[in-house]
Amino acid sequence: MTAEIVSVGTELLLGQITDTHAPLMARILAECGIGCTRRATIGDNMDRLVGTLKGAIERADVVVTIGGLGPTLDDLTRDGIAMALGDEMEEVPEVAEKLRQFFASRNIRMAESTLRQAQKPTSATLVDNPNGTAPGLICQKNGKVVIALPGPKGEFDPMAQGPVRQFLEQLQGGQVIHSRVLRIIGMGESHVEERVRDLMDGENPTVAPYAQTAECHLRVTARAENREAADLLIDPVVDEIRSRLGNHLYGFNETTIEAATLDLLVAKGETVAVAESMTGGALGARITSVPGSSKAFKGGVIAYTVSAKESVLGVPSEIIAAHGPVSEEVAKAMAEAVRDRLGATYGVSITGNAGPTADVDGKPVGLTYIGVAGPNGTTVEQAQYRGLREDIQRRATQTALAQLRWKLL
Amino acid sequence: MTAEIVSVGTELLLGQITDTHAPLMARILAECGIGCTRRATIGDNMDRLVGTLKGAIERADVVVTIGGLGPTLDDLTRDGIAMALGDEMEEVPEVAEKLRQFFASRNIRMAESTLRQAQKPTSATLVDNPNGTAPGLICQKNGKVVIALPGPKGEFDPMAQGPVRQFLEQLQGGQVIHSRVLRIIGMGESHVEERVRDLMDGENPTVAPYAQTAECHLRVTARAENREAADLLIDPVVDEIRSRLGNHLYGFNETTIEAATLDLLVAKGETVAVAESMTGGALGARITSVPGSSKAFKGGVIAYTVSAKESVLGVPSEIIAAHGPVSEEVAKAMAEAVRDRLGATYGVSITGNAGPTADVDGKPVGLTYIGVAGPNGTTVEQAQYRGLREDIQRRATQTALAQLRWKLL
Repeated sequence: MTAEIVSVGTELLLGQITDTHAPLMARILAECGIGCTRRATIGDNMDRLVGTLKGAIERADVVVTIGGLGPTLDDLTRDGIAMALGDEMEEVPEVAEKLRQFFASRNIRMAESTLRQAQKPTSATLVDNPNGTAPGLICQKNGKVVIALPGPKGEFDPMAQGPVRQFLEQLQGGQVIHSRVLRIIGMGESHVEERVRDLMDGENPTVAPYAQTAECHLRVTARAENREAADLLIDPVVDEIRSRLGNHLYGFNETTIEAATLDLLVAKGETVAVAESMTGGALGARITSVPGSSKAFKGGVIAYTVSAKESVLGVPSEIIAAHGPVSEEVAKAMAEAVRDRLGATYGVSITGNAGPTADVDGKPVGLTYIGVAGPNGTTVEQAQYRGLREDIQRRATQTALAQLRWKLL
Repeated sequence: MTAEIVSVGTELLLGQITDTHAPLMARILAECGIGCTRRATIGDNMDRLVGTLKGAIERADVVVTIGGLGPTLDDLTRDGIAMALGDEMEEVPEVAEKLRQFFASRNIRMAESTLRQAQKPTSATLVDNPNGTAPGLICQKNGKVVIALPGPKGEFDPMAQGPVRQFLEQLQGGQVIHSRVLRIIGMGESHVEERVRDLMDGENPTVAPYAQTAECHLRVTARAENREAADLLIDPVVDEIRSRLGNHLYGFNETTIEAATLDLLVAKGETVAVAESMTGGALGARITSVPGSSKAFKGGVIAYTVSAKESVLGVPSEIIAAHGPVSEEVAKAMAEAVRDRLGATYGVSITGNAGPTADVDGKPVGLTYIGVAGPNGTTVEQAQYRGLREDIQRRATQTALAQLRWKLL
């Protein structure tokens, strides 16, 4: 069973707002075992709406429209669906009555166009909308299903997650699609793919790689009767991948590298402090984005200037003078100093040049040193990142977390 | 002239990631005076890709694809475009050589599939990608244009905003739609709307409000022969809005509150240092995300624990003992201490409870104190934020920047 999603609205089409409903609807369809094969976004234009709907209805079993159910003249979805399905429009008297009562009870004059929301294509049943005036629609005709949902988030979310999900589960009558994401660090997408290429030929589960900033994800997806049965298909493939990638696999699904590293620290009863120059606090911010980070995070120093490195952190001025602030020696001294000052098991430092221009010492954009000081001494890694300032900063914090995790393993 | 956008990627289609590139591309097309009539999202499936591309090429003058240019087997866009246009594929020797050099210079073995990125459809010219390995494509054939851009944000954004925008402007050569975004802080969307309601009835330029996290944007959009003529229409409306909103208007277009505040500091030859508890470095990270921030940012202390507040920052322990770490008194002491330690004109502090649970002292989730210490004394603002941990942290840094700006004005 396949589905297509059609988002309707000129403000969506022109990019004035970002569509988060269609991704949610696609996930709901997948969880109900219905493969979404195509999504489209069109403006408030009747010809294109009807054309797009006809194509979608022809190709897919289920078509879900989002938006365009409001009361104004540019809300075309109800009429568009009727035209695409060859339906007439009819008024639902109970809905018209409800709308009149709704406005009367609030002492607001009802615009005449509001009553358009009481109309429906003849093949439609209504989906109750407790949070708004426009009901949703489920049309069933000639073996095809067209579902129409309103655009406002407070109306869309409960209808999509509630009655529409229920309807789709029953319609599908069985299979679900369930995924697990494996998060991999310290190994590029092509190399991950080389090691698991044979597993990518599988049909159930499937294995697919996704490159992320300085990490890589593998999504293992199974189709089965229910989530538990899908997990039984996924488990052995995950075990096989784990045996091939070892410690490069750091977590599953929504687990970030900061959360995985904090978990390791907490499990060992150890703590970390950070000394950041180039990243200006971004490493600390990533660590403290994890709920409960206070169990292992002591804090740190944003040693953005030379004087901050010397006065607050206590890096000897002769080291900075001899090697420049962007150097292996300063990274080492920063990591050791912050570990010492804050009494943490580990001190992590980042110093580098995030750009956009070479720094005063002529150190090139992207050159970065990352230090980790711990009970068994200090290591410093040199890296040369490319990209925009924010990419360089992101890669640096990512590498710092990966380095700390590596020490903890 | 019309355009369609085709986003390619199973992870997009299934809603595992939200597409922010297509909205940006739609805005760029609009600004170049090219009407986007349809957007589509499809997975990594060659038949559907080619079918969708053929339909788009038939209907529209310009088709822009996003994603699927990477090195792996599921990156199909290059080949899909060639098939849709009836082109052959050919290798570009200079790109292949660049790729080999790139990997050699980093001492990384190049996966064989990487060389797919050196291939192009015969009708394509390449768009240089300074931030990644996959070049973009501009194919021109039979009066139609197909543009292919890579998916990673750090590669997509500069290419779309740079050479592709330039190409589209030349291609269109007629009317442009040009916008200016006015960024407003310290005033909610409905109050902004009340003050500019009459201006929202205009047709050229139009004025539309958009709510953002702890700020509000007004988009003023004009249609004219060229960008300069559009600016002449926009200018008087912006002047009128400015006179009504005063200092609440802090910047235009991409100017963030951190950039606006840094500009003020640099203009006055003043500096700032930060002392962060609850936000763990996020305020420093926002400030240092601005290129050139070292001109006014001294650094700071991530005083996440009580001991860090006392030992590194020097907040007297009796103040913390008397009032608890989340208190007006501690915010004041933190701001003053960091100003002093780092020798900055201003010290900004944030202490609060970002959740998810009430803290050890029973301070409720979201309670936050923001201090600003300066030459004329110290002020502390108390706030009670709602939302998730990340929302609370974001609102706190937003307010801290707004408070500092207010002091500077």
